[in-house]
Amino acid sequence: MTDNRTDTGRILLAPTGWSSQQWIEELAGAAPDRAVTLEPEGEADPSIHYAVVWKQRKGLLSKLPNLKVIFSLGAGVDHVFSDTSMPDVPIVRVVSPDLTTRMSEYVIWQVLDHHRHGPRYRAQQANRTWLEDKTQAAAADLTVGIMGLGELGRDAAAKLQVMGFKVSGWSRTAKQVEGVACHAGAQGLDAFLASADIFVVLLPLTHDTREILNRDLFARMTRRGPLGAPVLINAGRGGLQNEADILSALDDGLLSAVSLDVFQQEPLPPESRFWTHPKVTLTPHAAAASMASSLIGPIVRQMDAYERGEPLVNLVDRAAGY
Amino acid sequence: MTDNRTDTGRILLAPTGWSSQQWIEELAGAAPDRAVTLEPEGEADPSIHYAVVWKQRKGLLSKLPNLKVIFSLGAGVDHVFSDTSMPDVPIVRVVSPDLTTRMSEYVIWQVLDHHRHGPRYRAQQANRTWLEDKTQAAAADLTVGIMGLGELGRDAAAKLQVMGFKVSGWSRTAKQVEGVACHAGAQGLDAFLASADIFVVLLPLTHDTREILNRDLFARMTRRGPLGAPVLINAGRGGLQNEADILSALDDGLLSAVSLDVFQQEPLPPESRFWTHPKVTLTPHAAAASMASSLIGPIVRQMDAYERGEPLVNLVDRAAGY
Repeated sequence: MTDNRTDTGRILLAPTGWSSQQWIEELAGAAPDRAVTLEPEGEADPSIHYAVVWKQRKGLLSKLPNLKVIFSLGAGVDHVFSDTSMPDVPIVRVVSPDLTTRMSEYVIWQVLDHHRHGPRYRAQQANRTWLEDKTQAAAADLTVGIMGLGELGRDAAAKLQVMGFKVSGWSRTAKQVEGVACHAGAQGLDAFLASADIFVVLLPLTHDTREILNRDLFARMTRRGPLGAPVLINAGRGGLQNEADILSALDDGLLSAVSLDVFQQEPLPPESRFWTHPKVTLTPHAAAASMASSLIGPIVRQMDAYERGEPLVNLVDRAAGY
Repeated sequence: MTDNRTDTGRILLAPTGWSSQQWIEELAGAAPDRAVTLEPEGEADPSIHYAVVWKQRKGLLSKLPNLKVIFSLGAGVDHVFSDTSMPDVPIVRVVSPDLTTRMSEYVIWQVLDHHRHGPRYRAQQANRTWLEDKTQAAAADLTVGIMGLGELGRDAAAKLQVMGFKVSGWSRTAKQVEGVACHAGAQGLDAFLASADIFVVLLPLTHDTREILNRDLFARMTRRGPLGAPVLINAGRGGLQNEADILSALDDGLLSAVSLDVFQQEPLPPESRFWTHPKVTLTPHAAAASMASSLIGPIVRQMDAYERGEPLVNLVDRAAGY
């Protein structure tokens, strides 16, 4: 894995949970002149300039004196920060049109499945019941509220509007998004929760957002809309969820239904009530898969730009934690 | 139901299968000066100028000497033509943004449910199986082929492109639609069938299209794409379907899956195999419900325009049958 092409430094690759081979091959294809390694050499390895990581082993990045940039292989970076011994270098999150497109597919798919009463029609099919739901609202009568207005949230917001939905949004810091009623911070949260019928969660997992999806939040959501009670769709992180609260809110009608792609513990344990709850649609952290083929290109282009002296983009804000 | 406001003529309302009351109320709200009746009077009723119909009784329209326009309450007009004694006056199909939006919701919903492996993930949930589908293609690697490029087909085409899909189309006469690889007529059919992975059917039911969805057509579809075999989504008319052929094509893999909203016989009989076939998603002719509230406005505006001497729009071509 080593060679003497050390002019631009070597890349340390740590895609925990993935097959390393596909990433090595993609890097070899996209950057044939860059050397890649899976492990640093010796006590401190000065040859490594870049780390490309997903859930890297704690301490892996702490003895790389020439490390210049850490690239996260996902949009979320909470996995990077879980290592407190990490050196103080810039962290870049992956932003790829492919990943964004996939996440918006999941959002539109799940919003439509709730809006168009997918679970009810599937139950009717199983019971051989021919009964059109005469309560079908128009998209324009519903507001989809997006929690998290980063790259993913903004793309979903635009596509939801194309489909005819009204869209509101909430983010930590104030944002302006075309056509979206934007709210920000703790002081904007109540107005946001009163604004929407279906809530789509694309928040980063930080100290501030851990278990933000709890009964207190659900109780502040409006229940005046055509759906009767709010629908929750979480494609952010499992750590955002108080899972006991979600289950009790489904049981007592505080929420009408949920679509969950992420969980506190993954894989979801077989004994979880989420598997069988009739108001739960679950997918196995598959909303927006990071495909090696679409992620490596943007990462290598950032390395090239950095070496030309250009600024890095999609930088993580360490203080904010995302 | 009659009064002496005959200056603009009366409206004959025949919304078979619907509650008449909601349509009467909507007409009263949208056109308070127009008189509405549910039945002609006497042998020939000269007071009726307009007929607003859905599956009208045969012969109902044949003795109205002053009938000027027939308005269909649906986008399809095969139900109007099933009465061969119908007078030779212009027929206007309903085109409402609400109806179009609902149909595109259905199309995007079902395309995404197949693209994102909804049936597989629902089966996995039922089996408590946590397994991401690593074969998930990108939308850009799939082509959705739309059969029928009228108002509904063009709107669906635009929204599918927003979601990242490639789109091809087929229609009786040559059309140009932005971003869509358009094919036309019998001579364009093979190229169209070779172009797509998921087929969305929004065709009118005419002499030429009756049972067009048959094994011969399915056998000409390409099977080179990421889905292995074509997916069929029909939200047009049940009469387009050779239903025995669809079932046999699902059984032997000529089709990989279907979403059907319409059937030769509706309600679908309880003994139909469609209810229980694992590769069938069915809805009860609910893809795009005609809502009285959204359809009457456009119809009344056309009456007003017609009386001002303006041309009717969305006219049916009697020779083509749609």
